Amino acid sequence: MATLPVVYTYPLSNYTFVKKEPKLDKDTTLADRLARMKLMYRQEGMRTSVEAILVVQEHNHPHILILQIGNTFFKLPGGRLRPGENEIEGLKRKLTSKLGPTLPALVPDWKIGECVGMWWRPNFENVMYPYCPPHITRPKECKKLFLVHLSEKDYFAVPTNFKLVAVSLFELYDNPQNFGYVLSSIPQLLSRFKFNAVAT
Amino acid sequence: MATLPVVYTYPLSNYTFVKKEPKLDKDTTLADRLARMKLMYRQEGMRTSVEAILVVQEHNHPHILILQIGNTFFKLPGGRLRPGENEIEGLKRKLTSKLGPTLPALVPDWKIGECVGMWWRPNFENVMYPYCPPHITRPKECKKLFLVHLSEKDYFAVPTNFKLVAVSLFELYDNPQNFGYVLSSIPQLLSRFKFNAVAT
Repeated sequence: MATLPVVYTYPLSNYTFVKKEPKLDKDTTLADRLARMKLMYRQEGMRTSVEAILVVQEHNHPHILILQIGNTFFKLPGGRLRPGENEIEGLKRKLTSKLGPTLPALVPDWKIGECVGMWWRPNFENVMYPYCPPHITRPKECKKLFLVHLSEKDYFAVPTNFKLVAVSLFELYDNPQNFGYVLSSIPQLLSRFKFNAVAT
Repeated sequence: MATLPVVYTYPLSNYTFVKKEPKLDKDTTLADRLARMKLMYRQEGMRTSVEAILVVQEHNHPHILILQIGNTFFKLPGGRLRPGENEIEGLKRKLTSKLGPTLPALVPDWKIGECVGMWWRPNFENVMYPYCPPHITRPKECKKLFLVHLSEKDYFAVPTNFKLVAVSLFELYDNPQNFGYVLSSIPQLLSRFKFNAVAT
């Protein structure tokens, strides 16, 4: 039999969540965001962003740690790479900036695993696709999702303008209305892994 | 940079499609199918099925070879494993039965690649999920999807009661109404691969 890649997961209660100062978004509206994206595209070319899928166990089922802004907007921790930046190092930098405690010794040892999916933004618009559409020779953004293997216990510090919520695969699945197309496809992307829940 | 796994794809026109005698489905209705599934579950336990994702290139975009039955039903080539059967060997057997020419020398050298996704059937019902739902201790079926690497040229023989159609990723994406949840998620499952179209 072909063996499945294994992901060890630990109970949500193993992790400690503290607060840190707010990390304000650079843009307050979608229009601002797309305008800034256009400007940066002219300066730096295609944006590459990297995001982390952090898996914990709760109620006997894998849950994903997701940042919630306000009541309705959800996003994975991560962000834009600097021009030429290595994507693994860039994702570690972004995770520390978004979720790392202020005390460097407490920052989790981010173990960046497999790239599990990629999404493309063909135009300066909100919509992304899990492929680069035909006839699009100059996509505006490529977003890569990585599985990040958490340690048995870790400290996270969450900016006060976010909540960090654990959302189950069955809440995400087939639910683009609430979570958008990228997040609601995570269950499919992770279906090839065997989750090994470690009770500690 | 983390390197992406590469899949070489060849133009649809590289492949030869001939007809062979019909392969009739064992069941004519969904109710029959679920009844037979129940009976076999009692005899053999959980059904494991294996299906193939065969990728070709057309119009500068990856397309998936899908079996069409009548006008509205689509499925990947593959089927149920025998009890204890190795999944790679079982998928080769199923591919030869569904798509192999009658002349053994012409049967493609099926190169079974990565398991890209798994779907679970919790009950004797039509619906499947890309995870085993919590509280389900005895799922009724597990379906594994494998990427199959085609050769530069191949012969396929399609039973006359099916059509073999090449469906683009953008037709499949977000289209469960036409293709069901399993097929319409293929673009996400394949998004982590780099498709290298070989012009021949």
